[in-house]
Amino acid sequence: MSQSAYQSLLERIREISLLGSINSTLHWDQETYLPKAGTVYRGDQMAYLSGRAHRLFTAAEVGEWLAEAAEAGLEPDSTEAVNVRWLKRDYDRATKLPTEFVEECTRTETIGNEAWAKARAASDFSIFAPHLKKLVDQARRRADYLGFEESRYDALLDLHEQGATTLAVSTLFDELAPALTELVAQGASACESLPVLLPEGPYPEALQKQFNAEVASAMGFSFESGRIDTTTHPFCTTLGPHDHRITNRYELDDFTSSLYCIMHETGHALYEMGLPADQYGLPCGSAVSLGVHESQSRLWENHIGRTLPFWEHWFHRACELFPQLKNSTPEKLWQHVNRVKRSFIRVEADEVTYDLHIILRFRLERALIEGDLEVDDLPAAWNQMFEELMGLKVEKDSQGCLQDIHWSFGGFGYFCTYSLGNINAAQLMESAHAIVPNLEQDLRTGQYGGMLNWLRENVHQAGMRQLPLDLINRATGAPVSPEAHLRHLADKVSIFV
Amino acid sequence: MSQSAYQSLLERIREISLLGSINSTLHWDQETYLPKAGTVYRGDQMAYLSGRAHRLFTAAEVGEWLAEAAEAGLEPDSTEAVNVRWLKRDYDRATKLPTEFVEECTRTETIGNEAWAKARAASDFSIFAPHLKKLVDQARRRADYLGFEESRYDALLDLHEQGATTLAVSTLFDELAPALTELVAQGASACESLPVLLPEGPYPEALQKQFNAEVASAMGFSFESGRIDTTTHPFCTTLGPHDHRITNRYELDDFTSSLYCIMHETGHALYEMGLPADQYGLPCGSAVSLGVHESQSRLWENHIGRTLPFWEHWFHRACELFPQLKNSTPEKLWQHVNRVKRSFIRVEADEVTYDLHIILRFRLERALIEGDLEVDDLPAAWNQMFEELMGLKVEKDSQGCLQDIHWSFGGFGYFCTYSLGNINAAQLMESAHAIVPNLEQDLRTGQYGGMLNWLRENVHQAGMRQLPLDLINRATGAPVSPEAHLRHLADKVSIFV
Repeated sequence: MSQSAYQSLLERIREISLLGSINSTLHWDQETYLPKAGTVYRGDQMAYLSGRAHRLFTAAEVGEWLAEAAEAGLEPDSTEAVNVRWLKRDYDRATKLPTEFVEECTRTETIGNEAWAKARAASDFSIFAPHLKKLVDQARRRADYLGFEESRYDALLDLHEQGATTLAVSTLFDELAPALTELVAQGASACESLPVLLPEGPYPEALQKQFNAEVASAMGFSFESGRIDTTTHPFCTTLGPHDHRITNRYELDDFTSSLYCIMHETGHALYEMGLPADQYGLPCGSAVSLGVHESQSRLWENHIGRTLPFWEHWFHRACELFPQLKNSTPEKLWQHVNRVKRSFIRVEADEVTYDLHIILRFRLERALIEGDLEVDDLPAAWNQMFEELMGLKVEKDSQGCLQDIHWSFGGFGYFCTYSLGNINAAQLMESAHAIVPNLEQDLRTGQYGGMLNWLRENVHQAGMRQLPLDLINRATGAPVSPEAHLRHLADKVSIFV
Repeated sequence: MSQSAYQSLLERIREISLLGSINSTLHWDQETYLPKAGTVYRGDQMAYLSGRAHRLFTAAEVGEWLAEAAEAGLEPDSTEAVNVRWLKRDYDRATKLPTEFVEECTRTETIGNEAWAKARAASDFSIFAPHLKKLVDQARRRADYLGFEESRYDALLDLHEQGATTLAVSTLFDELAPALTELVAQGASACESLPVLLPEGPYPEALQKQFNAEVASAMGFSFESGRIDTTTHPFCTTLGPHDHRITNRYELDDFTSSLYCIMHETGHALYEMGLPADQYGLPCGSAVSLGVHESQSRLWENHIGRTLPFWEHWFHRACELFPQLKNSTPEKLWQHVNRVKRSFIRVEADEVTYDLHIILRFRLERALIEGDLEVDDLPAAWNQMFEELMGLKVEKDSQGCLQDIHWSFGGFGYFCTYSLGNINAAQLMESAHAIVPNLEQDLRTGQYGGMLNWLRENVHQAGMRQLPLDLINRATGAPVSPEAHLRHLADKVSIFV
């Protein structure tokens, strides 16, 4: 009886995964190759598939199967139990929100997104403010529908990082912030007087692609089950259990920009490639959280890519492709890609300043959701907090609270996963250095197999079997803390001081 | 009541068209970009969508809506009547074949296709023969399920060219064959002594793409609603009412090979782009037949592209891109692309010899289906007939009856549409020369708007409102006949004699 309920559930999820993966393919095509005039019909195609997937998942029988399967007394750590547990969580979430509320949110977000684009272009917060009020109000109502114990913000956080609490994240960030502000001050002043460190371009696009493909392959990315295309904004997407696509963009005057995008997206792709393929679409075959996903991209990008051993190994090949580098050295490239500079725009921030951008957003959106900050007071609060954290005075809202798209589509509770990723990455990498045999030697010679295997065994293969905090704790033997990340950033600053 | 049945039908077809267009997108991706390891899951995705579309179309309520809508006394030429008429034809076809029979065919075709590939590689007909017997038997049973009046072959023909009969096609081909054999003899002997006419390559791929894109744009292909990618076998596919994709392949030693592929596929794409978008997926928004579709590709490729005026206009631009052409002339390129040469392989044939390959296949597959030829006797029959028609002795079956893939997946009744396309194209082009103002002048100056408009008005916009024979008759003022095509081929031969 319960076996049959579980089997019915598996079949349904298999169908929903087919629909989801097809939709991802359509979306990938839209971002890469879709002719402009095809956009409207593409929207119809995707809405049809999403609608069908949603109806299939929220159908009453799914609730019955879940209840029946759960009652069967499964072993708590078994594949079945893990799948049922998280599917039930998703089912409850999907059925708790009334259809009219979801439709209202979609409308508000569409209109809000347009208003945000106008507001940012004009650097005029008043254009966006009335929409942001509605978006905040909806986020609060969403939290009410979903339910929470301590804070409304917990409900939103849990949508992106299950098991995370507002209290835990703010404790981490409160520990991080003052130390970061100090490190940024040291790093930025030491880097101020540095000359330009990268030889002049152009670095031809075709050669950047060649170099990136070699690095991605060395990391373990398989072109048998993946590919790299070009888009405005780089991303990584999974179109099936053996189909992983990365996209990238190219700057002709700095090849390291596309290189670190590729290392970042390849980190994401390796996680997806390392999930158990026979559990594709099920919780046991899915990434556990955004914060863990981001740990994989940041680990490869920052802890492997932005190191001296990386450049000691790859410098020779880079010189073959880009002859102007012959006047440079591995050390200079290493310095170039770690340069510290205070800046207003998050997506352009270096590694040391980055988390300050996130902490700012976390504190402000928490205050908005918990009712401690009014939307009208947001620009002033942003500018004041930014100056305290970063030591820079915001001159206009387009480089302040209007810079990110996220809030305009209701994305509250998302930003902090970027910094959780950084914290997780540093803690994982410190452990890897202690545990993985010959890792130093491997990294100096461009051998990444040992590193990847360790990540596969300790992170990728688990799927959603453990909560993010437990996963990191088990992999590293210690609870999640910002200490490793702070040591790592202090090392980066010490390059220059 | 009947309006409501028709509306229900429209909604259902809209859903089926969404599924079909999504499947076309997945197929396009499979041919262009899909990583190898993604193939199996891609098969699952596509089978899921096809299965759902089939179930939605063959559902009992569709039959009821069709009956109800037909009984409403629609004007015979109205959009509603045309849509209902052809949808009923499709519905009857889809519901006449028992599910077990369709499944049996799929299995036989999968196995037959594998056997064919082995047989061709080994040039050993005995490997394929037992499978071909089953495939012929199934084709005969398919005809029995579908029903026919004169000949089983009529039923198969009608699947690809509605309204065409075995008698009518064989009459056309019997008129064509002896004249062609004569023209081929003249042309081939005149061309035998010609020197190499194209300057040596390489013709770089990127520059071929540039040239092809300019020609396709001049023809009227819109890159706002279409694109060109690279595949092993060129094709044209429609992924939505405003999304038309062409693919091509490149030979570095002859840029005209990819050029004529593009002109051919652009001809197909212009037809699809010219169908009424508001009827997308419905008969009034669909191409009427393969023979008419092929007329559009052949017209642009052969009647516009392989002419002296074409090269008089495009020679200058070709020289800019491929400087080695400066030692050539428009006349030499024109001769190069019209050279007549007897050959064994259909897909490599020139325009003058091409139809002989088709006539051979038509006669043989008709005989197989009508029971006048046994599979075991096929190689001998092929070789004898090929020598009579083409004047060449087949030495091995891999260059004879094993060369084409079509029969191995049960594709009987398809080949003749290629020659019907040639015949239609010639007749349309002769009329266009008589009717379209300033056409000579336009073609000499690379202006193709007048030509395209005439095709849109007389062919594209009609969708399936007229049968192919009626469509050509109405557009040209005369019943379909091979005379224009023979005059056209005689002109081609006269280049050399």
